[in-house]
Amino acid sequence: MVLFNSDKEQGWEDLGDGVSRKVMSYNDDLMVVKVRFEAGSIGAPHQHPHTQISYVASGVFEYTIGDRTFVMAQGDTCIVPSNSIHGCRCVEAGVLVDSFNPMREDFVIQTPPSYSR
Amino acid sequence: MVLFNSDKEQGWEDLGDGVSRKVMSYNDDLMVVKVRFEAGSIGAPHQHPHTQISYVASGVFEYTIGDRTFVMAQGDTCIVPSNSIHGCRCVEAGVLVDSFNPMREDFVIQTPPSYSR
Repeated sequence: MVLFNSDKEQGWEDLGDGVSRKVMSYNDDLMVVKVRFEAGSIGAPHQHPHTQISYVASGVFEYTIGDRTFVMAQGDTCIVPSNSIHGCRCVEAGVLVDSFNPMREDFVIQTPPSYSR
Repeated sequence: MVLFNSDKEQGWEDLGDGVSRKVMSYNDDLMVVKVRFEAGSIGAPHQHPHTQISYVASGVFEYTIGDRTFVMAQGDTCIVPSNSIHGCRCVEAGVLVDSFNPMREDFVIQTPPSYSR
């Protein structure tokens, strides 16, 4: 099992429109993912059953959860309850470190099974 | 419910021996906590049933999980499986951002009940 994840040894996945993602450590219950935003880029409003906490590693983000919006700077965090609609607008380029419970299966590249049954 | 946690509005809890803690966002399932270490300070080996992921926000840490040790720098992460013995030695002063599933009840100050029954 991989226990340690070196930032330098992993590349960014380009999601388009100035947003990139890097999946770091995870198991079934917990996952940490970095999301890098260029200034002006958008994390479009969306929702999922996973609880999420975002930590601002760098940059400035106008972050909306439900009907509440807060301008977040380096070191700040927020919590997105299960199924809450949330999104952000990147004011100054930076990186969010997102934690999820449970892990986001949709973020992991699925290897097709060797046999179809 | 508190959704946004400003880093500047929360103080550090001094744990002694060069280590401080700041509990950030949490619910029952997920908690993010900052732990600040002075150079040379130690996170003594311990274990807990919670899954933990540590993200190095700053500094350099010699981090041990079970029988494996890795020198972690800014941006790196590691995952501590449930009940794995883990600890660290701070090589250069910095901050770990720790995520836990479930939340760490022992990190939250308990308010005594108003009535004893």
